[in-house]
Amino acid sequence: MSKPWSVSTNQFINEQESIMRTGNVYQIANGYMGYRGTLDEFGPEQLVGITLAGIFDRVGDAWREPVNAPNGAFTQVSLDGVDISALSTRIKHHEQRLNLSNAIFERETTFSSRGKTLTIKSSRFLSANTPNLGVIRFSLTCNTAAAITIHTGIDSNIWDLNGPHLLKLTPEKHGGVLLVHGVTNEASKRVVVVEAIKCDFGKEVHSATGKKHLRVIGTNIEAGRTYTFYKYFAVFTDHDPVRKSAKKAAIETVEHAKAHGYEACLNIHNAEWEKKWKRCDVKIEGDDKAQHALRYSIFQLLMVAPVNGSANSIPARALSGQVYKGAIFWDTEMFMFPFFLHSYPEKAVELLRYRIKTLDGARRKAQSEGVGYRGAFYAWESQETGDDACTYFNVGDPFTGRELRTHFRDKQVHISGDVAIAMWEYFRVTGDDSLLLEGGAEVILECARFYYSYAYFKKDKNRYEILDVIGPDEYHERINNNAFTNMVVKATFEIAIATVKHLKQKHPAELRALVRKIGIENELSFFAEAVNLLYIPEPDRKTGIIEQFDAYFKLKEAKIEELKARKLHPDEYLGAGQGLAVPTKVIKQADVVMMLNLFKERYPAKVKRANWEYYEPRSEHGSSLSACAYAMLAADIGKLDWAYRYFLQTAKIDLEAKYKVFVGTIFMGGSHPAANGGAWMTAVFGFGGLKVNVDHVALNPRLPKRWKCLEFSIVYKCDRFDLKITNAEVTIIAAASNRSERRFIVAGKEAYCTPGNSNQLKLHRGKRTG
Amino acid sequence: MSKPWSVSTNQFINEQESIMRTGNVYQIANGYMGYRGTLDEFGPEQLVGITLAGIFDRVGDAWREPVNAPNGAFTQVSLDGVDISALSTRIKHHEQRLNLSNAIFERETTFSSRGKTLTIKSSRFLSANTPNLGVIRFSLTCNTAAAITIHTGIDSNIWDLNGPHLLKLTPEKHGGVLLVHGVTNEASKRVVVVEAIKCDFGKEVHSATGKKHLRVIGTNIEAGRTYTFYKYFAVFTDHDPVRKSAKKAAIETVEHAKAHGYEACLNIHNAEWEKKWKRCDVKIEGDDKAQHALRYSIFQLLMVAPVNGSANSIPARALSGQVYKGAIFWDTEMFMFPFFLHSYPEKAVELLRYRIKTLDGARRKAQSEGVGYRGAFYAWESQETGDDACTYFNVGDPFTGRELRTHFRDKQVHISGDVAIAMWEYFRVTGDDSLLLEGGAEVILECARFYYSYAYFKKDKNRYEILDVIGPDEYHERINNNAFTNMVVKATFEIAIATVKHLKQKHPAELRALVRKIGIENELSFFAEAVNLLYIPEPDRKTGIIEQFDAYFKLKEAKIEELKARKLHPDEYLGAGQGLAVPTKVIKQADVVMMLNLFKERYPAKVKRANWEYYEPRSEHGSSLSACAYAMLAADIGKLDWAYRYFLQTAKIDLEAKYKVFVGTIFMGGSHPAANGGAWMTAVFGFGGLKVNVDHVALNPRLPKRWKCLEFSIVYKCDRFDLKITNAEVTIIAAASNRSERRFIVAGKEAYCTPGNSNQLKLHRGKRTG
Repeated sequence: MSKPWSVSTNQFINEQESIMRTGNVYQIANGYMGYRGTLDEFGPEQLVGITLAGIFDRVGDAWREPVNAPNGAFTQVSLDGVDISALSTRIKHHEQRLNLSNAIFERETTFSSRGKTLTIKSSRFLSANTPNLGVIRFSLTCNTAAAITIHTGIDSNIWDLNGPHLLKLTPEKHGGVLLVHGVTNEASKRVVVVEAIKCDFGKEVHSATGKKHLRVIGTNIEAGRTYTFYKYFAVFTDHDPVRKSAKKAAIETVEHAKAHGYEACLNIHNAEWEKKWKRCDVKIEGDDKAQHALRYSIFQLLMVAPVNGSANSIPARALSGQVYKGAIFWDTEMFMFPFFLHSYPEKAVELLRYRIKTLDGARRKAQSEGVGYRGAFYAWESQETGDDACTYFNVGDPFTGRELRTHFRDKQVHISGDVAIAMWEYFRVTGDDSLLLEGGAEVILECARFYYSYAYFKKDKNRYEILDVIGPDEYHERINNNAFTNMVVKATFEIAIATVKHLKQKHPAELRALVRKIGIENELSFFAEAVNLLYIPEPDRKTGIIEQFDAYFKLKEAKIEELKARKLHPDEYLGAGQGLAVPTKVIKQADVVMMLNLFKERYPAKVKRANWEYYEPRSEHGSSLSACAYAMLAADIGKLDWAYRYFLQTAKIDLEAKYKVFVGTIFMGGSHPAANGGAWMTAVFGFGGLKVNVDHVALNPRLPKRWKCLEFSIVYKCDRFDLKITNAEVTIIAAASNRSERRFIVAGKEAYCTPGNSNQLKLHRGKRTG
Repeated sequence: MSKPWSVSTNQFINEQESIMRTGNVYQIANGYMGYRGTLDEFGPEQLVGITLAGIFDRVGDAWREPVNAPNGAFTQVSLDGVDISALSTRIKHHEQRLNLSNAIFERETTFSSRGKTLTIKSSRFLSANTPNLGVIRFSLTCNTAAAITIHTGIDSNIWDLNGPHLLKLTPEKHGGVLLVHGVTNEASKRVVVVEAIKCDFGKEVHSATGKKHLRVIGTNIEAGRTYTFYKYFAVFTDHDPVRKSAKKAAIETVEHAKAHGYEACLNIHNAEWEKKWKRCDVKIEGDDKAQHALRYSIFQLLMVAPVNGSANSIPARALSGQVYKGAIFWDTEMFMFPFFLHSYPEKAVELLRYRIKTLDGARRKAQSEGVGYRGAFYAWESQETGDDACTYFNVGDPFTGRELRTHFRDKQVHISGDVAIAMWEYFRVTGDDSLLLEGGAEVILECARFYYSYAYFKKDKNRYEILDVIGPDEYHERINNNAFTNMVVKATFEIAIATVKHLKQKHPAELRALVRKIGIENELSFFAEAVNLLYIPEPDRKTGIIEQFDAYFKLKEAKIEELKARKLHPDEYLGAGQGLAVPTKVIKQADVVMMLNLFKERYPAKVKRANWEYYEPRSEHGSSLSACAYAMLAADIGKLDWAYRYFLQTAKIDLEAKYKVFVGTIFMGGSHPAANGGAWMTAVFGFGGLKVNVDHVALNPRLPKRWKCLEFSIVYKCDRFDLKITNAEVTIIAAASNRSERRFIVAGKEAYCTPGNSNQLKLHRGKRTG
């Protein structure tokens, strides 16, 4: 497997948990919707999910979550009157495959039923060109003549965690097109699914029984002959920017696709994927395992990148279902955004536009939390309006069956700074300030304003402090002066000041208008004071260790395994004020280490090393965001074995799908795009040693032993560079279309890369500079 | 029962819980030690407890608690070889009585055993004159001739909650005196108990078996004749200020008492009690029930007032046992202290000396909590050193069997201000500044310094705030700007400023020495700023309601009964971060109402009324401190029916002993001296309307309907006044020994009371001024 471009299996295990995990691993998506890796004949019990991006709904008091659409890809075959299904029919052979090069899911299953052997083969893709469209090729072959009935159409039996979300589900038929429409429970937003097929055999009748709106195609098939039909389905909602009705748009979409035909649709789709990979692939020579896991990680991110112009973002579980309410967390800015920023900036733009779009929600949250704050306090769990979907009580207590109060929503204030940092990073790396003018500057100033409104001044210490927060380590709630949070706050003030400075120079009229609009003039001077007087926990003079928060060092030492052994119930949570980890130094995930990653140029290596070594054995990695932070910092400080170990952990998370899928009775399965982004960051920032600076790109590579070569591309100030790193040298190829010469510094050596030319720089082994 | 001067019962109920409650109700004490109301023949299983004031010990990891002494009052009789005991012998008649006039416990029990009738009668008192001494008269009478054996001496089987505290218990015999000595587990402090008897009948031998060090007196008694002996026991510890050894002092004490004889000891004891009552009794005419309960309450306080010169204070459960670790809480300053201050100031002095003595402990706590503070942060549960006996985990979780983290110790910061306020009150009411010079001023300044070190400044609101505290309502932990706490902090700054001002005028050298000693010169100016800029939650302009803490109004409404009905286990605690009350407006006890009581002159009646009415239905009264706060404020605002109802609740708590005695498996029984003090405050401050002001004493009486007359005495600036209040008039009798004319303002009418004279002032009904 020298070019690992697929995931495949020859097994079908008919167990709920296996079906669920396989559904995650083999999912496909196109930014508009996800389709879990389930088989054609499956239903809601097998967690068939077509999860839509950016449309949410709530039923009663249950969690608000994304809407799953009716399944326009449903097909069920019966052979001589007997239903054929992987769930009930004897399987002689099964193979399924996810092609990473173009996100096509294929299955081929040979069934044995009453002495006959039937092979079903299907390919499925969600068009990378037409966001609303799904396309399927379905064929069957029997070893003998047989009577076949195909039920295919739209299955409105929908898997929901907290549904049903679609009311008034109504089947319609428009010529040869099947259509189901319904409206969301909460806001009566229309969701339409249509389906058309191209089938050259059999006789079709229609059937709408229960929630299935189907065609029933009967035919007698010949022995050994393959019968193939093509299926097109489209999903539209009131959120789609179409001029006509959703219904009309949906019908036109499938009719258009059908008219073009399967191959034409596939070709356009493949061309899009080819472009994606050309820009975003990271090649590792000499380590197929790492290559496979990393490529799968990048693949996940490419699949779920928002549709251009949608101003959507990527939820913590991407489009793999409704887990975590389909909400956007800090995961996006801190873990996924860098990948897009450096290799696919037009998607990075959408992620940021999402935060601009939800700025009013963040303002509402700031006003309504606690005593009320000014500025923008972004939602911890953000949906389409930016109002917080995070509940105050959101961890189940297995002892009482009650929900425990956590402070994720009201105290995890670093989220606003995470957004501001990403907004500024976009400008810093691309040089494009249009987004600042589009609302990005407003976001940044409102985030800084929120922090100023949240901060307290300690007069006798002459410093500002950030009190009563949760840092990345969620086991310790309501703590003061979290090193991570305080640094994020400081950076936010710096960024706000830099934003004002930039606009003053380049866009003074826009700055004046903005300052007037949000009435912030009197507050700007405080930001400068706050930058100077904000307390930042310093590395201990002797040990170099930074205290994670005030009085963290006073907590008890505890071994993670011993702590877990004290659990009285497997599902008991270690935090939430009374959990076993709370009085101890055991932390849920990278916190100081995450901070040192984010601000790595501000700290010397020995501080980073001291903290990595101190916090690593105290980290439970109870979050999928943790491993990559330890991986990246380990690479930065030259702990390559550790870096590699944590890199594989983060890169393989979705490929292996060994994560915990139930917390208590709550289903938590799905993909981990933040870990996927962490895998990319570890490869590129960690091993590649990439760091984009004000006036140059720095590269300080340090590859894992077995890696012979690492190749990736970056976009820097709208110019594109292909980078090839070996242990001996770095090659930089500047695209011919680049506009300017750009400066690189590779392990201390300077290179000016002019459009269309390549530079080759020898590496002195072991040398590494900032 | 027109003069209710006793508590008595004709019942003996042989059940553990009844024995325990009766032991509380019938306890006696003399400030040095308490003796629970158990019978002569009882042992540790019946919770016989001789709890010593001011000496503490810890065994292993268990709670540190006061030391109980071996029982030098033990006597067990056997009749014709059969042990006679209320626990096992048939009782024909039983009566026990506690005399409130002199704290004598008497029992008379007539037993029936094998056809013979034996009456045992005993009286017991702990000398009010000689703190270490207990005296017993014991007699027996049989209806027939019989062989009697009396086992009397020292029973070293000690009831302990977390013992055993006394090691190396060694019996000795010195002439006719029995002696047991041992040392505390933790610090090898010596505890000695000696016993001597005066017995004119029988033949005595000695027996030291098990832990009983006894005399065995055998005799054949005649029918109908009463045999009486006298018993003297003394307890001494290394804490006693004796020049000779504890042993010697103890032996001398009992020998001296024995030489004097029972009647002489009793007479001196009675004379002391007569003085106490003359100064401290509160007479209610027309309401025997209230009179009895109030007198019992005062009696409790008089019994447990610290021995002069001891610098001890009164624990939350007084000397009734080891509950609450024998620790001193804010209960003392806020609930008990006013009684002593106004009627028995030499005892008030001891309570304050205790806080001076433990100032270093408070300094240690300030330095060690959280990030470390300056000044004095008094212990939430204070023992002899002032180090905090309160644990961070101190509420049992019935679901897991674990201890829950509470923040009583680290966040109930109002304790320091409570101490400072009491310290200043003493000076304000007595005019005696000697205590300020003795260390009181240092206490005050260090408390203010602690608050300054704890406070944060909110620049954009230009105010200081007090963050992250627990107010009196312990169900809501880690809250900001608690109205009670902030007012206490403000008062502390005011008092610190006033203290400096007073010393500057009267004792400038001492002030200079103090400022130098504690290095506080640079901080003093901040106190003035803090007074002006400290945020105090204001009454709402429309409703007049003061928000208990930041965002309290956002909490959910809940009915207390419905909340309790949601309990899954009877012992589950409603607070501790995850309890049922936490997300609701249900509060454990008076909080804003307590504040309005403490600072009642600062708020108009309509604000007090609005808050009383708002918070009363939301108060669970889960603390015995709550009822009196509601009672006092109700009296203040003229809600006399409510005031009376809550007054009876608080006054009867120990007399009826209906309180909860077990929380989970933890024994919580014992007396409630804070509620006793609350009963006195309600009578005198509430109904009497007494308020001592800078230059006069104000009286604004409003008696409950059935009260014809309320009489009490006060000491004001070292002068003594007897006050008699009816609905029609107030009579003020100034003692002949008074030194000055003093100004009184009675319902707005001024009176100058000169030594030896009485003033009579008519009341206009319904009129009431500040």
